[in-house]
Amino acid sequence: MPLLVVGSVALDCVETPTDSRDDVLGGSAVFFSYAASFFSPVRMIGAVGEDWPAEHTRLLEGRGIDTSGLEVIPGGQTFRWRGRYLPNMNDRETLEVHLNVLEHFSPVLNGNHRDCRFLFLGNASPTVQLKVLEQATSATLTVADTMDLWINIQRDELEELLKRIDGLVLNDAEAKLLAEDENLVRAGHAVRAMGPKFVVIKKGEHGAMFFSEHETYVMPAYPTPQVLDPTGAGDSFAGGMMGYLAEKGRSDPQTLKEALAHGIVTASFTVEDFSLDRLGRLDRQDVDGRLAEYRTMLTF
Amino acid sequence: MPLLVVGSVALDCVETPTDSRDDVLGGSAVFFSYAASFFSPVRMIGAVGEDWPAEHTRLLEGRGIDTSGLEVIPGGQTFRWRGRYLPNMNDRETLEVHLNVLEHFSPVLNGNHRDCRFLFLGNASPTVQLKVLEQATSATLTVADTMDLWINIQRDELEELLKRIDGLVLNDAEAKLLAEDENLVRAGHAVRAMGPKFVVIKKGEHGAMFFSEHETYVMPAYPTPQVLDPTGAGDSFAGGMMGYLAEKGRSDPQTLKEALAHGIVTASFTVEDFSLDRLGRLDRQDVDGRLAEYRTMLTF
Repeated sequence: MPLLVVGSVALDCVETPTDSRDDVLGGSAVFFSYAASFFSPVRMIGAVGEDWPAEHTRLLEGRGIDTSGLEVIPGGQTFRWRGRYLPNMNDRETLEVHLNVLEHFSPVLNGNHRDCRFLFLGNASPTVQLKVLEQATSATLTVADTMDLWINIQRDELEELLKRIDGLVLNDAEAKLLAEDENLVRAGHAVRAMGPKFVVIKKGEHGAMFFSEHETYVMPAYPTPQVLDPTGAGDSFAGGMMGYLAEKGRSDPQTLKEALAHGIVTASFTVEDFSLDRLGRLDRQDVDGRLAEYRTMLTF
Repeated sequence: MPLLVVGSVALDCVETPTDSRDDVLGGSAVFFSYAASFFSPVRMIGAVGEDWPAEHTRLLEGRGIDTSGLEVIPGGQTFRWRGRYLPNMNDRETLEVHLNVLEHFSPVLNGNHRDCRFLFLGNASPTVQLKVLEQATSATLTVADTMDLWINIQRDELEELLKRIDGLVLNDAEAKLLAEDENLVRAGHAVRAMGPKFVVIKKGEHGAMFFSEHETYVMPAYPTPQVLDPTGAGDSFAGGMMGYLAEKGRSDPQTLKEALAHGIVTASFTVEDFSLDRLGRLDRQDVDGRLAEYRTMLTF
């Protein structure tokens, strides 16, 4: 079942304690789409500038991703992010952000996009996310991401969005900020009470937590000894999760739990190299193999 | 099968963002023994001063713990620790430490102690831990804890200890320090390569990781919405784990994994109140009930 994602497309500069990369392919829609493409057809909406290398589009299309919604803005520059990871490789500081074409981007869905029943709203202002939601008239499962910026400056719009989506994916610091509670279990339920049927809290190297009316659970990250670049892990997680849901065409509690596991395992590959380099060497068998290992790890 | 523990017995002063307690029962041997007592007979070795309230000994004996090894040092004062938890309730700062009777304590094992096949060496100087190990002539499974202090000032003695024990339990910061590696998966294996057959890294609210020659796995903490005081969680974890191993009388890979789960679940009760207050209201059925819930949580 096709899956629609709207999000950022970026050129990233990443510094880690031992290595760095300049102007590599990144952005929430990119990591999400690529990760999801192992499970289901993906249609992507985003904007780039004239500096966008055509090879990146070809890379995405090589995985069967429909990039007809990737708009090249005349005279524009692609969104750029520069970040540096601390020695623990879990925390990072943002050194530079240039919104560029994202500043005025208002996504427009075409017929193919509007047909999608599964929709992921990558991190963007809630105003933009609401505009997309209004156009996605066939969507039966809508999941959004957000960030501290919107919690701080567009809380009202975010709360409006929360009443209209099925699921929210956010990280631990954002959940604490949104719920104003330092206990993640309480925070997760408080965010769920704001509207979405389920909430997933991403904890980076510590895995993810799930909250619905009747369920609370936590799943650890897959323990990989090789963490070269955590950029995109959260979006790959969401991509693996939504991709699996779209593949199954349903979102009952058992499928959601399997989807979380697929998201965790997919993200564990992303961090093993820069940008999409590790995912680029991956096939579905690799994912399924590590998933079986992960399942064994949690069985006692 | 009886389980022997040597460790600290303390009077703790604990401050959390919302509450505090003065002079409450604490110490590694205390939390360990109490937690382990839900699974197997426990024999405890420790030292206290003349200020030690007899009611604390009665509380331990009420759980069937053999306190014949609890020495009251004439003219001495009990070990005291004062700490303050940060708002996240996972990190803390030590405000005061008074070793008191622990400064010159050299544990002596009696016949009952020497009979024990399962031994836990609570956090103490590796010199003291080695002295205990030499006396524990019947021990077939020996597991030790340690801390940053000994890694920094008695590294040689600690490395000697590591060659002579079966398992090491330590927290994430200590594992990184000991292995000089910020990646916990690599750090766990590096510490294991120093001697012990298995290493368990405690990650507080994020659970625990296990490393042996052929296995690497991580298990999340049980997500409790009520965290009043994390003091003793690590020792309760070790107590639940070792208590379960002693109950089963074996330490094969499958039993070790079940033991980790029992440790995690036992510790999840400890943090729900100050000192031993929550464990004091607990019975084995409560542990088994939460364990079943934990198992379901990890099944997908």
